[in-house]
Amino acid sequence: MNSERAMEQTSRVDKLPQPYLLFLGNETHESYAKTAFGLRDWARELCVGEYALDGATVTTGLPRLTPREAWRRGARSLVIGVANMGGQVTPAWIPALTNALEAGLDLISGMHGSLWDNPLLAAAANSHGRRLFDVRKPPQGIPIATGRRRSGRRLLTVGTDCALGKKYTALAIAGDLKARGIDAEFRATGQTGVLIAGGGIPIDAVVADFLAGAAELLSPDAAPGHWDIVEGQGALFHPAYAGVSLGLLHGTQPDVIVACHDPGRTHVGGLEQFTLPTLEEAIEQTIALGRRTNASIRCAGISLNTSKLTERDARACLAEYRARLSLPCADPLRQGPEWTELIEAVLREG
Amino acid sequence: MNSERAMEQTSRVDKLPQPYLLFLGNETHESYAKTAFGLRDWARELCVGEYALDGATVTTGLPRLTPREAWRRGARSLVIGVANMGGQVTPAWIPALTNALEAGLDLISGMHGSLWDNPLLAAAANSHGRRLFDVRKPPQGIPIATGRRRSGRRLLTVGTDCALGKKYTALAIAGDLKARGIDAEFRATGQTGVLIAGGGIPIDAVVADFLAGAAELLSPDAAPGHWDIVEGQGALFHPAYAGVSLGLLHGTQPDVIVACHDPGRTHVGGLEQFTLPTLEEAIEQTIALGRRTNASIRCAGISLNTSKLTERDARACLAEYRARLSLPCADPLRQGPEWTELIEAVLREG
Repeated sequence: MNSERAMEQTSRVDKLPQPYLLFLGNETHESYAKTAFGLRDWARELCVGEYALDGATVTTGLPRLTPREAWRRGARSLVIGVANMGGQVTPAWIPALTNALEAGLDLISGMHGSLWDNPLLAAAANSHGRRLFDVRKPPQGIPIATGRRRSGRRLLTVGTDCALGKKYTALAIAGDLKARGIDAEFRATGQTGVLIAGGGIPIDAVVADFLAGAAELLSPDAAPGHWDIVEGQGALFHPAYAGVSLGLLHGTQPDVIVACHDPGRTHVGGLEQFTLPTLEEAIEQTIALGRRTNASIRCAGISLNTSKLTERDARACLAEYRARLSLPCADPLRQGPEWTELIEAVLREG
Repeated sequence: MNSERAMEQTSRVDKLPQPYLLFLGNETHESYAKTAFGLRDWARELCVGEYALDGATVTTGLPRLTPREAWRRGARSLVIGVANMGGQVTPAWIPALTNALEAGLDLISGMHGSLWDNPLLAAAANSHGRRLFDVRKPPQGIPIATGRRRSGRRLLTVGTDCALGKKYTALAIAGDLKARGIDAEFRATGQTGVLIAGGGIPIDAVVADFLAGAAELLSPDAAPGHWDIVEGQGALFHPAYAGVSLGLLHGTQPDVIVACHDPGRTHVGGLEQFTLPTLEEAIEQTIALGRRTNASIRCAGISLNTSKLTERDARACLAEYRARLSLPCADPLRQGPEWTELIEAVLREG
């Protein structure tokens, strides 16, 4: 019953209560606080502050607030920004989380276990009339994909590997299109993306049969001028996640792809026996497979993650890839004329 | 608790109690009795008989037995061979299913809902010391794929579409290898396959992140001369299921593929706006993507479903495809010299 309720809650996407108070528990290892750091880095404006227990040494550098102070500053939910090994709520967190519910904040979790599975939290949420959101749970009732062509336009960020900028590239493109007055929407497919967008579908948590169907659900029919900018996941050459990437590609049926790459990376992250494909191979494979559901799919350009390079080296690197691939190459974090060229290539009629 | 118990039960694969009594409920539509027909057609020797309620008009043609009679003839479980729309146990079935438990049979279901979710069945199973198996539930604790090369040899059946012979081809190849004294095992990836094999993983029910990991789990390290013959799922060109097929391909890391095709089929089943790829395209794409986890992947031949052709037309069709593709082409249901040629191509060193 509780778990059904949690599912029903999270199936109402696009409605996470924002802004957030980031909960750090009693964490002492930065690597377990990825969600909090991700939100601080990619959606600073959505984060009112942080809330930590005695003993925590990790900090986001945001103001340290009590739930009541955070609520007064506008926060409407507490995000559990740390993950423990078991993926469950730690008993030591309960008083603080209950405190947040009392202060008027809803709770949001990206952990494996559902917040509703904790009877103390479920009781506190019910008695205070607050809500518990599990962003890692996909909505119920996802249909099998049909492959039917939908109206409106779609862009998907793809990559040569995981964790090299697909989310940030999609966010930056959506932001740029909106700034130009174009009707555009960022469509989140991962946990942090869902927290940033306030909605979306964690595509890698969907049962395999419904992968492409979930992607179809995520970017529905839209007005002819509308753009859905879909956050990519995994990589077609990734030995563990290629299936997710292909289901997302088929279901999204993108008109445009932007290929993301880290020029310093030579091997699959965490699987060092696998070399990365070249950008040319990644683009060619994506176009070949993507044609199945959108015959006019095209690559508008390259998003390079040049964060490890100096400004001068980065510009040289972008120019080198531009010449090699004959495609616009830009780093969304550096903007500049390269970025403008990429955005214009996105918007050019196919 | 009950659902945890069900999961734990089904995670002990390779141990479904056989042979089976096929339960037909009060079914009047053949299309809802696919599981029963599948078992009768592909694993006749595992089916002791059928058991139906008054009002049922569907029959498998097998002896109609009570659970007690079936038990006396060797049956050790009752398989729910019909599926209703809701995917749950129908209240009208309960007395019959309880009857089976009393008679000493375990229950096996391939429906969406777990048998353990029905409190009457759970109570009856507990009081009679019998077991309830949900073959649609994947085991718990599937790891993320690593892509590590495993010992032993693997064959995967792939196809131009769903439902054209991938399961039967794999069963026939495994059977033939065993008959030659080769250490070989059929590895089931779908519900009917799991019932036939008595174990396996329903790959399309796995959470997307763990797709390739499930395939790795299914065909583990083995002796150098051992062959795992893995049942394919979906198709790389299928707009709804390609992600499943790619995850299965990467995780299986097959040394050999056999490509399955129905020469009379021109469009994707149920999605008539999509033409089928040619066999050449399907093989080329499978080899290109499969190389990622096994550089020496090769196609040993073609399995054609010629069930709609006369014997004479079928042999002509096999010869035509053989000439066109320069690969052994056979129909496992017709055997003959074509089939021997295909099996020998499987066994030839790569």
